[in-house]
Amino acid sequence: MNVVVIGGGAAGAIAALVAKKRGADVTLIRKDKEFFVKCSSPYVISGDVEYERAVKSDSMLTSNGIRLIIDEVTDIDTEKKIVRASGIDFFYNKLIIATGAYPFVPPMSVSGSVFTLRDGEDVKKIMDAAKSAKNIAVVGGGAIGIEVASELKKMGKSVMIVELLDHLMERVYDGEFCEKIERTLSENGIEIHTSTKVERIENSNVVTDKGTFEADMVVLSIGVRSEVELAKKTGLNVDRGIVVNDKMETSLRDIYAAGDCAQYVSIIDGKPVPSQIATTAVIEGKVAATNATGGNMSLNGLTNPIASEVFGTPIGRVGFNELDCKRAGIEYIKGYAKSLNKYDSEKDAKPIEVKLLFEKKSKVIIGAEMMGANIAERIDLISLAIQKKTTLGELALMNYCAHPKLTPLPFMEPIVMAAENALESLS
Amino acid sequence: MNVVVIGGGAAGAIAALVAKKRGADVTLIRKDKEFFVKCSSPYVISGDVEYERAVKSDSMLTSNGIRLIIDEVTDIDTEKKIVRASGIDFFYNKLIIATGAYPFVPPMSVSGSVFTLRDGEDVKKIMDAAKSAKNIAVVGGGAIGIEVASELKKMGKSVMIVELLDHLMERVYDGEFCEKIERTLSENGIEIHTSTKVERIENSNVVTDKGTFEADMVVLSIGVRSEVELAKKTGLNVDRGIVVNDKMETSLRDIYAAGDCAQYVSIIDGKPVPSQIATTAVIEGKVAATNATGGNMSLNGLTNPIASEVFGTPIGRVGFNELDCKRAGIEYIKGYAKSLNKYDSEKDAKPIEVKLLFEKKSKVIIGAEMMGANIAERIDLISLAIQKKTTLGELALMNYCAHPKLTPLPFMEPIVMAAENALESLS
Repeated sequence: MNVVVIGGGAAGAIAALVAKKRGADVTLIRKDKEFFVKCSSPYVISGDVEYERAVKSDSMLTSNGIRLIIDEVTDIDTEKKIVRASGIDFFYNKLIIATGAYPFVPPMSVSGSVFTLRDGEDVKKIMDAAKSAKNIAVVGGGAIGIEVASELKKMGKSVMIVELLDHLMERVYDGEFCEKIERTLSENGIEIHTSTKVERIENSNVVTDKGTFEADMVVLSIGVRSEVELAKKTGLNVDRGIVVNDKMETSLRDIYAAGDCAQYVSIIDGKPVPSQIATTAVIEGKVAATNATGGNMSLNGLTNPIASEVFGTPIGRVGFNELDCKRAGIEYIKGYAKSLNKYDSEKDAKPIEVKLLFEKKSKVIIGAEMMGANIAERIDLISLAIQKKTTLGELALMNYCAHPKLTPLPFMEPIVMAAENALESLS
Repeated sequence: MNVVVIGGGAAGAIAALVAKKRGADVTLIRKDKEFFVKCSSPYVISGDVEYERAVKSDSMLTSNGIRLIIDEVTDIDTEKKIVRASGIDFFYNKLIIATGAYPFVPPMSVSGSVFTLRDGEDVKKIMDAAKSAKNIAVVGGGAIGIEVASELKKMGKSVMIVELLDHLMERVYDGEFCEKIERTLSENGIEIHTSTKVERIENSNVVTDKGTFEADMVVLSIGVRSEVELAKKTGLNVDRGIVVNDKMETSLRDIYAAGDCAQYVSIIDGKPVPSQIATTAVIEGKVAATNATGGNMSLNGLTNPIASEVFGTPIGRVGFNELDCKRAGIEYIKGYAKSLNKYDSEKDAKPIEVKLLFEKKSKVIIGAEMMGANIAERIDLISLAIQKKTTLGELALMNYCAHPKLTPLPFMEPIVMAAENALESLS
């Protein structure tokens, strides 16, 4: 069986590896010269991680017998089951589209030293420009924008973040978490301009509705859009991404999609959810490849767990936040907790803050926001709790381990404390 | 309503606080002069944690309006509902017994500088003796024995561990994990004598069936036994601990038990499980106090999650290991994975190893063993997975977050990898 994979990011690479492992003949056609690990970009820019260490070797694919073609696919012929790249045809039995996403730039006039950030080439350009830049503006205060700004600041640059919305990360976190993030950035010397609309970039200066901010370099980090041109041209059902079902099947037979280019639904309300993160790509790639090669795997909606950093402080969320609930018309109750990541007898114990949301009637957990040390695995725990429709009562009685160097005090596990706090709000 | 709590460790303290919060008049009668956090003992001994930092202030109780009595209970009159201590009677509507456990010492002749380890007084004695001791023998290779030995070694002492069983921690981990633990200790200069029966301790020398090991100080860390004398005398149903049901009710009306003195069942096979750990104490104390004060909380069996350290490397387990399965006659399949705690591009990334066990027929997760950085929260995640009867397929498709500084690479989450490994063993 011939499996052709278009795209070589996380979704494409994993899909190719899984399909190969399951016995298929696999061709991966990739536009990018190399597999650059995008989430490492901020740290490569600052020199904290060497560029080469953020590149995954292609031998990961080729040594497993995957045919790697560096080329751009121009057409898909769904009748003849052929993928065309630079005039060469590749026949497929099953096709997996993993074309990823591209950085979004709103229509505006742009001049000067202005960069978007997506692949390794972008990173190299930014690194090069940053050498001589003193004042750098980052437009867009999402996770990546914040990390890039933080890393540039650590390099000794003057850095500002310009954000259209009222808060940085407003689409990701509830207000109180956004404010903490903003405070941390301000305390570390980053200038923040929220509720500020960028009108144009003129000779690297950021012209906004609040005035002109001088800079000698600008990084645009406004978000990404699914790369769906090829899919549209091929006649696939495309919304904001390529529409897929729980098997990662598209609207056309024998064609699957996975990763940033695909649009799947939230586990909470069954509605489309933007989940353009690497782990979603990996999971969808695995599901697509398993089903494409005769297996049977269903993805029961996405919980969309994410984690990032603000000057060394981890932040993360999973499921729905309050804004999501309001938009979806879901009534909820909430629980808060503050704790430490170790026993309070440990001098290097660091704070953790947890907020949990539960659906009001069923008391089932639907979301979490966290900030502080060792929260990433706790985000995963809540992700599983959402997947398994865990109730408030069950979380409050969850068994957990304790050790002075490894966890909070036995009665200070923040997830349990937040569940208890929500429980109290009921009585 | 009068709630009397006997014992002021984790179970007793939490039970008192919860009962008080729920409106009861609460008296806590405690033998110990202070509330010493036992899991910190190894680190207090080495001076890594100051003694005072491992003592919880009694104001935690008294400032909340709990009547604290430092005294020993001699009798319980279940007819008159009276608890007697030093001739003073305390009337109860509901009684919560949380008498804890005591260090087990097998019958043998003992002379010299020999110590058991349980409370703060024991710690002080060991600290004092360790000042002049050069060669120290630790008898018993469980979690605490290993941590005490490691801390003493870090202080520059010559340290040996003498263990009756074939492996250190044999009752806790499967062979391959025990061997890793032993290797780590050996590499750090600790002398290990397994399969060695201690016959007596003579002038601080350890006389065994394999010969006499010279030492000038001995720490006995052979395990603990439930403190059940008072319960037996009172006529409660006692097995290895005070038998309780899912409400933490004992066999006698209006009397509850919680923590190390109580015996409750495993969530996996419903059979009694030794779970003398602080977090179990906290959970049971909470359940007992809630039910004693008119609430309704049921504990659905214990998963018994534990974590400890071997020279800075965390180790942990939850649920059943292979030995437990064999004893219980449970057929299982297993999955292994090795990963890192961060992206491989991070220079300080540390290894993680995960082993998962699933019940063969249902494919439901029943246990995990882990070693390496950031495993404690993953142990908790599997604890919840066990509680929620999560299957192999569900774990393999779990959503999780990824970030270079905070988690493994997107396709390297060890829990998911281990589930996939088990899945492969099925095909």
